Formats: sequence, C-alpha cells, structure tokens
Amino acid sequence: MDILIKNALILTMTGKGVGAISEGYLGITGNKITAVGPSIELPAQAMEKVKTVIDARGKVVMPGLIDGHIHAMLTLFRGLAQDMDDWMHYGLAPYLSNLTEAAAISGAALAAVEALKNGTTTLIDFGFPMPSICRIYEEIGLRARVASLITAVPIQMEDLPPGELYSFDEAQGELLFYQNLALIEEWHNQAGGRITCVLGPQGPDMIPRELLLRIKQAAEDLGVMIHMHVAQGDRETYQIAKRFNCRSIPYLHQLGLIDKNLLAIHLTEATEEEIAIVAENGVAMVCCPASIAIIDGIVPPLVSFLEHGGRAALGSDQAPGNNSHNLWNEMKLAALLNKVRYRDPKVLPAWKALRLATVEGARAVGLGDQVGSLEPGKLADLIIVDLQQPGLVPYLEYPVRNVVPNLVYAARGHEVETVIIDGRMVIENRRLMTMDEEAIVSQAQEAARSCAAESATKILALNKGPAAMMHDGLI
Amino acid sequence: MDILIKNALILTMTGKGVGAISEGYLGITGNKITAVGPSIELPAQAMEKVKTVIDARGKVVMPGLIDGHIHAMLTLFRGLAQDMDDWMHYGLAPYLSNLTEAAAISGAALAAVEALKNGTTTLIDFGFPMPSICRIYEEIGLRARVASLITAVPIQMEDLPPGELYSFDEAQGELLFYQNLALIEEWHNQAGGRITCVLGPQGPDMIPRELLLRIKQAAEDLGVMIHMHVAQGDRETYQIAKRFNCRSIPYLHQLGLIDKNLLAIHLTEATEEEIAIVAENGVAMVCCPASIAIIDGIVPPLVSFLEHGGRAALGSDQAPGNNSHNLWNEMKLAALLNKVRYRDPKVLPAWKALRLATVEGARAVGLGDQVGSLEPGKLADLIIVDLQQPGLVPYLEYPVRNVVPNLVYAARGHEVETVIIDGRMVIENRRLMTMDEEAIVSQAQEAARSCAAESATKILALNKGPAAMMHDGLI
Repeated sequence: MDILIKNALILTMTGKGVGAISEGYLGITGNKITAVGPSIELPAQAMEKVKTVIDARGKVVMPGLIDGHIHAMLTLFRGLAQDMDDWMHYGLAPYLSNLTEAAAISGAALAAVEALKNGTTTLIDFGFPMPSICRIYEEIGLRARVASLITAVPIQMEDLPPGELYSFDEAQGELLFYQNLALIEEWHNQAGGRITCVLGPQGPDMIPRELLLRIKQAAEDLGVMIHMHVAQGDRETYQIAKRFNCRSIPYLHQLGLIDKNLLAIHLTEATEEEIAIVAENGVAMVCCPASIAIIDGIVPPLVSFLEHGGRAALGSDQAPGNNSHNLWNEMKLAALLNKVRYRDPKVLPAWKALRLATVEGARAVGLGDQVGSLEPGKLADLIIVDLQQPGLVPYLEYPVRNVVPNLVYAARGHEVETVIIDGRMVIENRRLMTMDEEAIVSQAQEAARSCAAESATKILALNKGPAAMMHDGLI
Repeated sequence: MDILIKNALILTMTGKGVGAISEGYLGITGNKITAVGPSIELPAQAMEKVKTVIDARGKVVMPGLIDGHIHAMLTLFRGLAQDMDDWMHYGLAPYLSNLTEAAAISGAALAAVEALKNGTTTLIDFGFPMPSICRIYEEIGLRARVASLITAVPIQMEDLPPGELYSFDEAQGELLFYQNLALIEEWHNQAGGRITCVLGPQGPDMIPRELLLRIKQAAEDLGVMIHMHVAQGDRETYQIAKRFNCRSIPYLHQLGLIDKNLLAIHLTEATEEEIAIVAENGVAMVCCPASIAIIDGIVPPLVSFLEHGGRAALGSDQAPGNNSHNLWNEMKLAALLNKVRYRDPKVLPAWKALRLATVEGARAVGLGDQVGSLEPGKLADLIIVDLQQPGLVPYLEYPVRNVVPNLVYAARGHEVETVIIDGRMVIENRRLMTMDEEAIVSQAQEAARSCAAESATKILALNKGPAAMMHDGLI
C-alpha cells in the first residue's frame, strides 16, 4: 500500500446516498483504491509497509469533484462579461477574437490551478488549442476528457447581428473537425489513461447538417462520446427554427443524435416534453447553474431531467460569465436555484447535489466505472477537506450528520487540503505540487492584460454591459 | 497618521457606483479615516510620521461588509436544519430548547470569527443572552448593533402544531422586553461607540398588540430603531390573519410601525403593493437571500423594494439553515437569485450587490453616517482583499474593471487578508489578532456536540428532514 488515510469521515458516495463511514480508512496502491473501511478493522501488518500515512481525524475524505463542462481557455477573461444581454456576441466575442494560442494555454493553466485547489479532479474541457492544453493537464496531474471545439460560425460573432441567420464557413468547420480527429489520434487514452477525448461540435446551430452527421458517424467509429451545447439559449432556438423550421431537440432526434452517446450541455431552453425525450433516450446532461443564471437569468430543467431518470453532471462553464471554476459553488447554486424554481426547500437536497458533483457526474461523463466513488478497484481520485475551518464548525455526526449539508451550503473550496489524482498527490496542504503556481498566475495575468488591451477599441466602441458601466463610473 | 495603506485599488463606495481609485492611498488616524486619494498625491512628509505602512499593490481596499441580520448564537446548529418543511417548528426549535446560555455565547463567538475572517465588520445581531454576547463583540473587536429577542411565544415551538394559533405567554413577553431595555441601558453606545442597541420584537405574530405598541413607544423615547422580522413567511401570514383578520404589513401600518425607525427583516411574503408601502414610508429592509432560498425556496422582493427607493442591507441570518455567515455568499446570491426571478441577466449587477453589502447596508441599519464608505471623517472600518488568489486572476482595470464583478461572483471570503475596525487591526494576514481562534472553535465544537446530543431523542422521534435522511442512510 502506498498511501493510507485513516480516522477520516469517508463519504464513499456508494449506495443511494453519500455512503458515510465514520472514522474510516482508505488505502491506495499505485493509482488505485485498494481498501476502504472503518479504521478499527485496519490490520496491523498492513500499516507496516505503507509509504505515506495521513491521519485525517476531523477531516472528510471524498471523491474528487467532476466538472462536467469547462472552457478552460476562457479563464483569461474572468469577470469581463456579465450583467448584460447578448453575452456571446457582445460579451465574449470581442475578446475571443484577440485570444492568441499562447494566451489560451495560459488561461487553461490558470483554470487548472483554480479547479484543482477547489477539489476538482476531472474536467471535461471544450476549447482550443487542445493539444497544447492537454500537455498542461498531463503535467499538472488532472484527469481530463477533452474536445477540440468544432464550429462553422466565425469566432468574431460581434460582427454577426444577434437577429440574423449565421452563414456557415464550411472550410472552417472541416478544419476544426479534422483538428478534433487529430486530437483524438494524439491524446485519447494518454497520460496513463488520465486524458481521454470526445468530439466537440459547438451546438446544433453552429454546424452544417451534413457535418453533424459525419461527426456522429466518427463518434461511433472511434467509440467516443459527443459533447455538445444543446438548447443552450434563445439564440440557438432562433437559428434552428429559421434554418430547419423546428426546435433543436427534435432536429437532433431526427438526425439520430439523441442517444446515450451524447453529453448535452445546458439544455436551458428544453421544454418539459423535450427533457423527457432526452432523459429517456439516455442522453447525459451537464447543468451549469451559476453560468446560466448569470448569462441568461435561467434555472435549467435539471430536476425534471433527474425525475425522468437522466444521468447528470454539474459544470462551471466559463469564467467571463460565471466567474469561477469551483464545484462547491455549482453544488450550492444547483440546490438553491432549484429550490426557488419550485418554491420548495426540499428540492435538490445537499446529498443529491454532492452526488451530482461526484458519482452521478462521473457516470454522466462516461467515467463512472473509473472514478466518482471510493471503492476498491476504482482509480484513486479523491480529496481531503478540513472541517476545522470556522465556517464548517461544528462537525457533528449525531443525531444527524451535518457535514453533508455544510459541504454543500457552507464550504467555499479553500477547505480542500489535499487532492490525489490517479494515486498522485497533486495538492498537499493546499499547495500545488506538480507545477509552479506563481508562474502560472503571473503568466495568465500578463496574457490577460495584453489580450484585454488588444480588445479595448472594439469593447469601448460597442459600449455594452461592463464597458457601459465603466463609462458611467459604476464599476 | 497611524496606518497608511498605499498602491491599492480603493473602492470608496462613494458616488453612485463603487467610487474606484486606482493605485490609491488611505490614511487612518485613531479610529477614523483621515485621507483618501491617488498615491501619486501622497505628500512625502506625511509618510515620515506613519506608524504602520501597508503596501497593498494588487489588492483591493474597500469598506468592511455589513451583515444586516444575524442570529449569531444559532451558529452552533450549523447544518442541522435545511432541505425540509416547517423549518422553525421541526428544524430549529428541537435544538433551541436545549441551547444553554454558555453554549449560545460560544456559538456567537464562532459566528464572530467566521464573519470577521470573511470581511464582515458590522453585524446586526438578534438573540440571547445578549449582554454576554456583547462582551464577546467588545473583546473580538466587531462593530455590532444588537437586540435582545422579544417574543411571547414559547421557544419550544416543536410542541405547537404549525396549523394552530399560538397562545401568548404574556409574562415571557414582558420579561424579554425588560431584558431588551436592560441591554440598552447597559450596552448602548459602549465599547467606544462600537456597540449600539435596538429593540428586537421577533415578529408581528409573536408579540401581543399592546406590547408591540409599548415597544414602539420605547423605541421613540430611547431614540433606537426597531429590528423585527416582517412578513417572514406563510406561518406569520397565517397567524396574523387568524388573530387580526388582516396581513402583517397593513396590521403594522395601522399600529404606526411602518416608518423610518423600522428595520424590517425578510419581507419574504410582502406583495408588490405592500413593498411599495414599506419602501415609500422609509422602512429599511434586510434581505437574506441564502437563508430564505434554503428555508423557504423564495426570492424576497428586494428588487421591487429598491425600485421604490427603499434602503436595503443584506444579511446572513442563521447557520442552521443558510449555512454560513459570509457576505460574499449573500452578494452573489442576491444577484443570481434575482436574475432568475426576473429572467434577466441585467438585474442586480455586481456593483449594486457590492453597494448593498457596504454603503447601502450601512444606511439601512442606521449607521450610514459612520461606516459603509471610505471617506475622510468616517470610522476606519475596512478590509484588504488579496487579488492574487487564482480564482480572482486576472486583475484588470482596462478596458473594463473586472475586479468588481469578480468580487461578487468569484470571491469566496478567504481572499480577505486584513480587517480593520475602528482603526484597529482585527484580522492580519488572515489571522485573528484579538482572541484565540482555536479556543473559540474547539469550545463551539464541544458545546454543539453536547447540545445536539441533548436534543437527540426529540429529533429522532420527530424524524423530519435531516433526521429522516440520516435514518434512510442518505447523509
């Protein structure tokens, strides 16, 4: 045994709830969990050969968090686009067209540091230049499932008026599809299996029909999932209606895409009937509560989806309108926003939110056989959370275990003390062990400053959202 | 000058927005702010006589946060009552009847540590035993405006079925009113003015009409505000309808309580018409977005109240159903919950949320002439926030200042590095300087464990909410 953690409150996330073991132990050998149980059962001889022993009394050991949807490269634009309409056109696009490859990589590294320090061990990333970003994930020690973004709509969306039908740049679509295929060739099942790939069409409105069918065929041939924004907003609904005279989900259903190979991001605009169709056909959903509340002012239909038996994960989406990559925030917001959506405090209780961010999330993104719960045979992706922080005190197990609601409603992320991924200590005593955090932060700062300055003329001329607030002396 | 902070991004919160000064300085002499401006204007001779110089490059200096409503003593029950119906009867009350005075004081000390470390400098507390809790606030260095809770309804509410009219215990009401008067006598304008008192009737449904009129008269005679839950939920609405055949706000209006001397907590159930009445009559509102979302699944009518010109603060309420005392959380949730309430991402932008937690909050609780903004002559209550944390990077001021939205949407509280109250350094490098944090935490832990154990028989017999989840192996 390489690592033994003892005396912890272990949330295995097995069974129907959180699978708690009080004063439990967990053993790691190589990159796998090899033993879990109450510390009292710990055989003395097992102790002798252990390389590292961690006494986790007063701490929680739980599976690492699964971020089902992130655009890591966009972290460079944190806080630049919220409290506004037409987010994609006038919030994001003016900056995106000045994002260099080097800057995008730098943004992804920043996102990786932020996510890791907040206990995320797996993220599903959707961006570019993905091969270089994979090198970051390999080195920093994350588990990642990645797609290279495929779109036939120009990145400079600020030049496309919101109300008009996009014209497709078919050559761009082909090139980006080819890049996603090349990414799969180069990175699928690499870094000892930590990095896997999927196909990443941006959304049904941004890809010509024929190309979408070829992506579907490629996914089947290669045995990879499709990770796509679906029913992500009124912009998409409008485009699909204008081009195909129907709604997104019926359109995708007709193309044969509504099946268990699809990881559908957002589903913001899905009707109750459409939600039933996607859930019952085995589509997995990623719900990004903070991002969709900030960008659209909407609570996506996660609860209905779960009621129809769907598999769901939570995601942090992007930092220009969230503004963080912190699954504690997403758990809390999933619970609170759905309570107010249904005007019922019992909706989405803490234990369900915790399952969405761990075991259910892992299943949704197709990694349920490897991670998401703590049981022998699974990969050793787990975190240790310090319960002595004033905001998590008291720590009680009787008559009820208050730790689970406190993790969801009170924890912020900084309580994560240790992060182990694939059996490797990536964060120890809140410090990143694999790369130079300070260098990543200062490079991202510089890259962002330069990219924002490049975008200034356009941003100031558009005078939308934050630019208008700046102009008016409000921020 | 005693303290000089230089090279900071200063959010003065003066004017209509955040009143930003890039690379600014702020001087403190005694307990007051004596100078604020751009660092470039700093006279060399001023530097020579300064006792403490803080170089805050890459940091934000802003007013300390105002928590407009907290039941600090209840912090001992953090995480014990959420995701359930009938919160007050079956969530809180079974524990509350076992809360000893010593335990309540210990809970309040824990709340104070948590609040301070998250940048709260003023809190409006409502509980008991308030004189002892005041001694904690005096020692720990907080600014507090306190009321001793007055109610004529027995604390053991779990024995009152939710659907029945309460009978009043008039002697208890008299005794608690007397205690609040004694608190004012002993603590009003004490601790160098840091501690002030108000009158604290629990709610219009929990106080006999005649007693409420006497409280109103006492508030006028003593020149103190009334801090009262108003329209806090369907339970209150039901009680008032049954007893007086009307709704809470018309009832209070008729008694002459709807005026600028009233700090109305929650207003959860207020109609649009009632909100107009309270706002236009000068009542101040405290909105507790997290607590009301968790307990009731409701977004209170804060935005309407502001549109009618009302003065509002944010509050963290109580830890058995919030579950934290962290104004960063309240700012974020005020913004997000109102965006989804109105399905509009422009509603309650970050700068407005930041104002609610500072300058507007101070005005609402009646301390606007003393704290809430950074300007010469005001008391030196301020915080320094570290922007180098990965979750707040990048830090940009051009073409837009992304710091303001990131403080609201991305900051968690642990980024607060320094807290100065009344010119005194209370938190320095994230460490509490005035009391022994570790001792407070461990005392609270022990007190909570004992109190929870005392309540176990009743909690397990009721088998509601978290107890049922525990029974079912879910948490």
